[in-house]
Amino acid sequence: MRPPLSALHRTGGTPAVPAPPTSGASQEEIRRQNLGALLRHVHVHGPTSRAELTARLGLNRSTIGALAADLAAAGLVTEGAPVTTRRGRPSLVVTPRSSRVYAQALSIEPDKLRAARIGLGGRVLDLRDTPRPAGTSAVDAVGTLAALAHEMDRDVAADSIRVGIAVAVTDTTRDRDGRVRIGGPDERLRAAIGAAFGDGRTGPTVLAGDLADIAALAEHVRGAAADVDDLIYLHGSSGVSAGIIIEGRLVVGHGGRSGKVGHMVVNPDGLPCECGSRGCWETEIGEAALLRHAGRDPGTPDGVSEVLRAAADGEPAATAAVERVADWLGFGVANLVNVVNPDAVVFGGSLREVYLAGADVVRRRLDELALPASREHVQLLPAALGPDAALIGAAELAFAHLLADPLHIGTAA
Amino acid sequence: MRPPLSALHRTGGTPAVPAPPTSGASQEEIRRQNLGALLRHVHVHGPTSRAELTARLGLNRSTIGALAADLAAAGLVTEGAPVTTRRGRPSLVVTPRSSRVYAQALSIEPDKLRAARIGLGGRVLDLRDTPRPAGTSAVDAVGTLAALAHEMDRDVAADSIRVGIAVAVTDTTRDRDGRVRIGGPDERLRAAIGAAFGDGRTGPTVLAGDLADIAALAEHVRGAAADVDDLIYLHGSSGVSAGIIIEGRLVVGHGGRSGKVGHMVVNPDGLPCECGSRGCWETEIGEAALLRHAGRDPGTPDGVSEVLRAAADGEPAATAAVERVADWLGFGVANLVNVVNPDAVVFGGSLREVYLAGADVVRRRLDELALPASREHVQLLPAALGPDAALIGAAELAFAHLLADPLHIGTAA
Repeated sequence: MRPPLSALHRTGGTPAVPAPPTSGASQEEIRRQNLGALLRHVHVHGPTSRAELTARLGLNRSTIGALAADLAAAGLVTEGAPVTTRRGRPSLVVTPRSSRVYAQALSIEPDKLRAARIGLGGRVLDLRDTPRPAGTSAVDAVGTLAALAHEMDRDVAADSIRVGIAVAVTDTTRDRDGRVRIGGPDERLRAAIGAAFGDGRTGPTVLAGDLADIAALAEHVRGAAADVDDLIYLHGSSGVSAGIIIEGRLVVGHGGRSGKVGHMVVNPDGLPCECGSRGCWETEIGEAALLRHAGRDPGTPDGVSEVLRAAADGEPAATAAVERVADWLGFGVANLVNVVNPDAVVFGGSLREVYLAGADVVRRRLDELALPASREHVQLLPAALGPDAALIGAAELAFAHLLADPLHIGTAA
Repeated sequence: MRPPLSALHRTGGTPAVPAPPTSGASQEEIRRQNLGALLRHVHVHGPTSRAELTARLGLNRSTIGALAADLAAAGLVTEGAPVTTRRGRPSLVVTPRSSRVYAQALSIEPDKLRAARIGLGGRVLDLRDTPRPAGTSAVDAVGTLAALAHEMDRDVAADSIRVGIAVAVTDTTRDRDGRVRIGGPDERLRAAIGAAFGDGRTGPTVLAGDLADIAALAEHVRGAAADVDDLIYLHGSSGVSAGIIIEGRLVVGHGGRSGKVGHMVVNPDGLPCECGSRGCWETEIGEAALLRHAGRDPGTPDGVSEVLRAAADGEPAATAAVERVADWLGFGVANLVNVVNPDAVVFGGSLREVYLAGADVVRRRLDELALPASREHVQLLPAALGPDAALIGAAELAFAHLLADPLHIGTAA
């Protein structure tokens, strides 16, 4: 899946030969970069005065004024409500047009399907969800997602700009017999979404990514790890997966399948895993493991919350289960910290609550196993964006295209 | 150690606000990029005709001609020996001036100290080494390295250009009592090298990095993984460490300590490790483990080669030791493949020979434990550059500065 995510990355790296811009395109390229930088600033940080943009972007006042005027003319920002700067001059405030410029975000989760319109600036304008029937593949779910989106379309103003469609797909899906299967986004899914969301003749560009990767991006842009450039986001649902961000860039791997941390073998003597291996991290820290250790049926709906409540109330079996899972959580985190040396590990999905319930145990195990220089500075953080993280991250995928070339999309859409 | 390696990376990534170039600098910036692209091409691929450079870099003929002339005037390339193009026109060949433009490369290995002059184009012009006395710290070794470099200086022509000094430092060093200690490059080391190699008033810029990271870079630029953008390079010496390259960029981690894969815990019931933990990968696949399983004294000089020879000759204890180590090697590789999803894993240092002796076992274990989609395409490769990899990679660090701005360094040095 690298191609759909590649908009997130600058091209190149040292050993590759950079594609040099031709001389003729240079002024246009610089203007595009500057427009993108300004729009990104208000997208990430919210309404900002021209004076502050001047300081933040290192451009002069007249350039900022011209860029803001161009973005306003394209309907991407508004300018107004001047504030007075320290020098006593009034400075117009540039605000993203969140209610007009939006991304269509979709998520295909093990047990739920969700669709949202997310405005520039990351505001959730509308959101619908529905249970995902067991046994439905990601492609099967597209019709339902299109119906959810269609419901929302009634409230969309005629002059709105949809900048793109992006979908976050969990890598595990539940078969009709309750078994978990490892999947992920593929070309067929993108084509199906393109067909369902297009105008019947030409489908729109659809960006797709692994749910944990996309939730990681959301937590990095505007969540728990907003100030952190090197992070591992761990997502717990029926499986365990990770999004890895290095120097502010999502690491997707050669085949788009990086972060399958649930299938690191941590316990060679452990239980068989759905993937065919044995003792995978998932078999020790997955939702089913927690429920099993607590003496519950692994298929219980909302079982994780029930066990955590019971542990908080002092039920011995639940308490022991939480401690055991937290201990293995710390074990795997230690390995990842040694391999990746991140500045933060963020716990999301159902692992957020598990982490909060067993934070001391996780930290203790990490301190015992990881190299001091790698673990001492590492922050362990609960995810901040809740269940919307995947939708917010998917919207960021779509906005990345707008931010790369604001006027092209702004005027063409 | 991120700062010394940062020259390897483009700045930015999606969520960060890019620093937009100012308009005034743009033509100069484009020329600098194009000069760098041309010089990089001949640095990596060797002598190349202007006609081929025109095709490869996507620039027009007159631009290539002007860039090549500028680089020739700065003494970085020569032009000559025209070849005839398919269109029948003669085209000058641009050749890097390897013998005139060089990097001072150093490596501090557990048992050896090495210094080399490496010419533009990656040619080893001169190389000296000496055993590293047990118990000497990396800083202690600087005087010896400076003496080796001083010896080589006698043969350097007066008009040579030294583009920089870079050092590859192993993360494990041997104490006087034979114990292994985990270290790595630090500010003190860079300062000591700057003082020893400077002119007494101002020290030169010294780039430093972890030996496995730097050897990974070398194998990526001009070794076993020259066509691979997502790779893990595993380096075996007294410890086991990795260099991770994602999309052609070295991943160094928040504190420059990524790739400490030798300290992933793979066997919770395993042996205590030097790092204070237990069952680390190093305790199963390190040189000492191989020797111990083969019934040898773990401190035997060249013990790894001796065990591998004995295994090739059919000695049962040696054969069993190689199989056991290869099995654990495959185990850890499977975990890394699941986490990072690389296109290739390269085995270097003493792990190169261990891998070659047990390749079937490594692959079998990988196939058993890793997810099919992640392992099916992954290439397992022996390193190609031998013991010079760290020096060649260190030189690449120094050349990265030259390639980023050829005329600045070319004329100023």
